[in-house]
Amino acid sequence: MPRYELTYPKEVHNTVKRYNSRATYALKTIHAIIDEAQLLHVSFQPDNSPFPAILPMIGAMGSFARPSADSGDVLDLYLHGYVSSRLINISRAKTGTEEGKEGAKDETPAGLPVTIAASHVDGLVLALSPNAHSYNYRSAVLFGYATVVTDVPEKLYAMEKITNGVVPGRWSQTRVPPNNAEMQSTSVLKVRIVTGSAKFRTGNTHDERCDLDDESVLNSVWAGVLPVHTTLGNPIPAPYNRIKPIPEYLEQFRTDFNTRSHATAVEAAVEPTDGKMDTDLQDD
Amino acid sequence: MPRYELTYPKEVHNTVKRYNSRATYALKTIHAIIDEAQLLHVSFQPDNSPFPAILPMIGAMGSFARPSADSGDVLDLYLHGYVSSRLINISRAKTGTEEGKEGAKDETPAGLPVTIAASHVDGLVLALSPNAHSYNYRSAVLFGYATVVTDVPEKLYAMEKITNGVVPGRWSQTRVPPNNAEMQSTSVLKVRIVTGSAKFRTGNTHDERCDLDDESVLNSVWAGVLPVHTTLGNPIPAPYNRIKPIPEYLEQFRTDFNTRSHATAVEAAVEPTDGKMDTDLQDD
Repeated sequence: MPRYELTYPKEVHNTVKRYNSRATYALKTIHAIIDEAQLLHVSFQPDNSPFPAILPMIGAMGSFARPSADSGDVLDLYLHGYVSSRLINISRAKTGTEEGKEGAKDETPAGLPVTIAASHVDGLVLALSPNAHSYNYRSAVLFGYATVVTDVPEKLYAMEKITNGVVPGRWSQTRVPPNNAEMQSTSVLKVRIVTGSAKFRTGNTHDERCDLDDESVLNSVWAGVLPVHTTLGNPIPAPYNRIKPIPEYLEQFRTDFNTRSHATAVEAAVEPTDGKMDTDLQDD
Repeated sequence: MPRYELTYPKEVHNTVKRYNSRATYALKTIHAIIDEAQLLHVSFQPDNSPFPAILPMIGAMGSFARPSADSGDVLDLYLHGYVSSRLINISRAKTGTEEGKEGAKDETPAGLPVTIAASHVDGLVLALSPNAHSYNYRSAVLFGYATVVTDVPEKLYAMEKITNGVVPGRWSQTRVPPNNAEMQSTSVLKVRIVTGSAKFRTGNTHDERCDLDDESVLNSVWAGVLPVHTTLGNPIPAPYNRIKPIPEYLEQFRTDFNTRSHATAVEAAVEPTDGKMDTDLQDD
């Protein structure tokens, strides 16, 4: 655990301009939002298109150099990919040779510039006026350079980290290690993080004075929060599954996940609303 | 309703190269995935950064020119934003004057190139080997040019569409119309869609023959799907709410949402698995 709370530097691309009280640059907060997300959205700018690409991917924060690092430490983001995909191919091309590697004199960082976003909706905030409607949410964004992991022990470390990020402890409960064909067909991207930020909203509705003073509005509009949470339903075994009943670690994961997910949504709604007006989510 | 099923053109940036049986270019499918998403991820490439920006935003498909258009028709995407935000400012600068507008001779399309992604996780697919792990999911991506909506009736149309996209019928149950200050402080972006695509996975686990033939693997690993669905919890009224109990349209929405969300996840798991191997989500 770091002795001080580490924060990402404020750069032009990650500085949150609106609702500063809702923003944080703390590594611990940002990394937790990333790790809790089942899906990450990874964006990069292809050379041959005016449009950025966005891919839904699975990933996990980690540190191969210091596996005991906690979520508030400096970490890399590992992403799981398929060997022939466009993202992997472009990243491989930009992974560079010796001169592109860390510690080299070349000023161009090795790797493909990527942006990674993770967002959780915790509640629908239904106010008296449509303009004061909002969401309770947590969102994080990371900026960094993606390279292809070629070192086999690091690749295995990342694959285990990503699998256990989906279901804690799952890796050791499956057929491991991956065989040669599997190691060949799967690529892992490592994103060296340059900076990042997180934003969130908690609380109940926050309406304008003109509506709060209007009897006809108060007497006609329901105001409040509908909590939103992700639920893991009853397991549906594969036709060839032989393990009955479902193992304890999976059932425990399901229970813990659902309890935490529900509690997060309810707690977000009952926390104090910050003093600013709601008009939307984004503030960039 | 269109007489034929419309599909988006296959361009270099939207053509899905892997798992083609999982891809679709049908407008109806793509628009439905966008409209069902509580959050969209909107990406654009700023001039002064190597990294694309990604913003979580709320949006809805619509056609102001033909409000009766259904989800399979040619539609625009409306996004809700704050007037001073960076995305809005850049889009406004690129909205252009007469020569940039539709029908003009200028070959540069008006507006900011943006990419919009919506993704739903429907299940965790837990196979015998970690490499065959996957998600059941639906994801869509749209590519288009964002401009700021200046026409007041169109802006009101879009604001109502976006509000009702979060909770059906909500707009008319709130204090409307927005006052002048609200109209001034809120911006709406309209994205003219150029193309798009959708991808999905359904079914239970799909393992390699070597694992299916291995007694020790079959006798030790639980294989199956954990369905994932979004739940709307019990409403938490605002301290100043006077409407008790919660109105019927809200309770009905909650019930319908939860029923559909749960059913979608379970149905995805019991549908046939396609014949391809799972290695990951992204295929670009």
